[in-house]
Amino acid sequence: MLRIDGSRLWRSLMELAQIGATPEGGVARVALSEEDRQARDLLRKWAEPLVDEVHVDEVGNLFFLRHGLDPEAPMVLTGSHLDTQIHGGRFDGAFGVMAGLEVLQTLADAKRRLSCGVGLVCWTNEEEARYCPAMGSAVFVGKQDPETAWACIGTDGSVFGEQLEHIGYRGSRWPLRIHSYLEAHIEQGPVLEQEGLEVGVVTGAQGQVALDVEIHGEAGHSGTVPMPLRHDAMACATEATQACRHLVLQEGRGVFTVGFFTMEPNSRTTIPNQVRLGIDLRHPDSSSLDQLKAELTCTLQEIAQTHGCRLEVRVLFQKEPVVFDTRCIQAVQIATDQLQYSSRTMASGAFHDACLVATIAPTGMIFVPSQHGISHNPTEYSSPEQLERGGNVLLHALLQLAESIPNTS
Amino acid sequence: MLRIDGSRLWRSLMELAQIGATPEGGVARVALSEEDRQARDLLRKWAEPLVDEVHVDEVGNLFFLRHGLDPEAPMVLTGSHLDTQIHGGRFDGAFGVMAGLEVLQTLADAKRRLSCGVGLVCWTNEEEARYCPAMGSAVFVGKQDPETAWACIGTDGSVFGEQLEHIGYRGSRWPLRIHSYLEAHIEQGPVLEQEGLEVGVVTGAQGQVALDVEIHGEAGHSGTVPMPLRHDAMACATEATQACRHLVLQEGRGVFTVGFFTMEPNSRTTIPNQVRLGIDLRHPDSSSLDQLKAELTCTLQEIAQTHGCRLEVRVLFQKEPVVFDTRCIQAVQIATDQLQYSSRTMASGAFHDACLVATIAPTGMIFVPSQHGISHNPTEYSSPEQLERGGNVLLHALLQLAESIPNTS
Repeated sequence: MLRIDGSRLWRSLMELAQIGATPEGGVARVALSEEDRQARDLLRKWAEPLVDEVHVDEVGNLFFLRHGLDPEAPMVLTGSHLDTQIHGGRFDGAFGVMAGLEVLQTLADAKRRLSCGVGLVCWTNEEEARYCPAMGSAVFVGKQDPETAWACIGTDGSVFGEQLEHIGYRGSRWPLRIHSYLEAHIEQGPVLEQEGLEVGVVTGAQGQVALDVEIHGEAGHSGTVPMPLRHDAMACATEATQACRHLVLQEGRGVFTVGFFTMEPNSRTTIPNQVRLGIDLRHPDSSSLDQLKAELTCTLQEIAQTHGCRLEVRVLFQKEPVVFDTRCIQAVQIATDQLQYSSRTMASGAFHDACLVATIAPTGMIFVPSQHGISHNPTEYSSPEQLERGGNVLLHALLQLAESIPNTS
Repeated sequence: MLRIDGSRLWRSLMELAQIGATPEGGVARVALSEEDRQARDLLRKWAEPLVDEVHVDEVGNLFFLRHGLDPEAPMVLTGSHLDTQIHGGRFDGAFGVMAGLEVLQTLADAKRRLSCGVGLVCWTNEEEARYCPAMGSAVFVGKQDPETAWACIGTDGSVFGEQLEHIGYRGSRWPLRIHSYLEAHIEQGPVLEQEGLEVGVVTGAQGQVALDVEIHGEAGHSGTVPMPLRHDAMACATEATQACRHLVLQEGRGVFTVGFFTMEPNSRTTIPNQVRLGIDLRHPDSSSLDQLKAELTCTLQEIAQTHGCRLEVRVLFQKEPVVFDTRCIQAVQIATDQLQYSSRTMASGAFHDACLVATIAPTGMIFVPSQHGISHNPTEYSSPEQLERGGNVLLHALLQLAESIPNTS
């Protein structure tokens, strides 16, 4: 059974991690930075000898194509991104690109040509650390037009299009027929590690609702206003978020976070008259997400009434859950089983380029464990063995998908 | 039955409120400011013709003494303060001083001499708006030494002693024998108004415990970490404060406020790893206050454990409850009943000079309703009729106390 070279994969990841390496052991390689350019150049140096075509599209997405036997057949594609957070780690994104490179290398070493082409893609700006929203895969799938992407102003005032030109990665649109897309990625959560499993077979990505809640009560002296006469915005906020949290816990599959919280006047001896809180609610199922959102909103209002507070809920944004393609999920599961790796199915909690590609082509993902579930952090870590398993699953899942395409030659 | 002149009381309050008047209808007359000096001068102008002696002590407390028939008898004293918060109102403090002035005026008009002397005091700096802690009554009762008070640096960098000299109100220690002390004040809370009552017979002041709570959890991605694997400092904080609040509600007599709250990293998509909150707990009974403090601390720790969070509780300060003198409380109650005003007994939720005077002399207080319970605010309001009733109660309670002193002449 064909295998990737795990130590070569680790070496390429470590060499790549030198570009933008930080003293804390992490990587700072923000999209379209000099470091991003260097990483792209290194990828080109490694990938070009393995493929027949290289393309850069209008927003800098970088494609390496190894032809199949049938030049007419749509290709199987894999990849991820090389940009990182400002205080990022060595594996988020980079693993998916290097695992794809390793697949190309393994096929080249084995002198193996599939019936269809195999492509590797490096998407531009997935992390949104400087330019927001992520535009590489968004433009590719037609969700964003390139003009908007080029005009995007970064947090440092730079213009995306100019910066893209500056690092020499502005190309042109290129017609690409995709049979399917697979992305290998670190889990960025603790589930696989906690359950002692080797591979996550990703079935889709959670939907997300971001709620902005404002509670208006009445300020007062913390000593002179008896409890029953208060309109305490903080007491209302704690009771309401507590009740919401229990609703989500009871439902069982969603996640609920209050990550943002401010209070007025925030003085120890004054009953708070205003609280603002940010709720992040996620769920893999669209109708459950909608139902939970409705239930939370209703609960928040009910509890505000009992406190004599006025409460406003605003939906900042809602992202629908993504359900991956059954054949892609199966290909990943079968490859995992053939390789005798332990696994579970799971929904991705985070956003990935695969979520966008899924809107135009059959898509799947492969997760490998993240130590302590830590990501977007210099201490982000997955072991060489864990990454090797992910690379092998990627190789065999891609082979399966490629073989499922009728050879018309 | 002798009565004060309610409209004269209102006029004196309104004239006084011109000194430091703000566009919002409130008063800015911070301790030892030019406005404070003007207010003291005005009080002198009004009070001097009514009394036999005027004294200014070493921290600027201003005494007006109307002699009694027995020069040896200890005097009955009343008063409050003329300084205000930066955005203060027209009645906090000023009412107690003007009501005392009105008592002196009424006695003078009636040409009435009591067996003992009657004193009016204007305490220096009760509000702590510039110099902290309040030192007028504190130095008077020996809780603070004058050297410390003089050296106190204000929020604007000014030195208390120099500023006192500058406005011409640094005097010298003066031996004063007090039989009892009564202070009339606005309630600064909503209880009397809510219950439709005219007078509050104050039995003491609540004790106060200020707790600083720090909760340490673990940061994480709000999408990728399942609920059961989280150490969410915010979820811990809401559950813990909710439980504490219920404990205090169940107990029935205390008040519980979380007026201060900060969270790290305070990013919408990150599980909070740190929360800091400030708890203000008050109770009129000393042992109940201690017991509640112990129960809250225990509850906080228990709930932190269930969240896998580390929690630290620090007692910032504890002020013991003040219990007023039975005879003073009775004198206020009897006067109220004789005047046929509706009333209830109540503990003060806020600090007053009376709380310090109570440590050296029999003390009592009289509350009148505050509109909507609002205080420390330009919209602070009590009606002329409400204030008049308070003045009458003060007059008759003082007469009772004075008459209870054996006439040794």
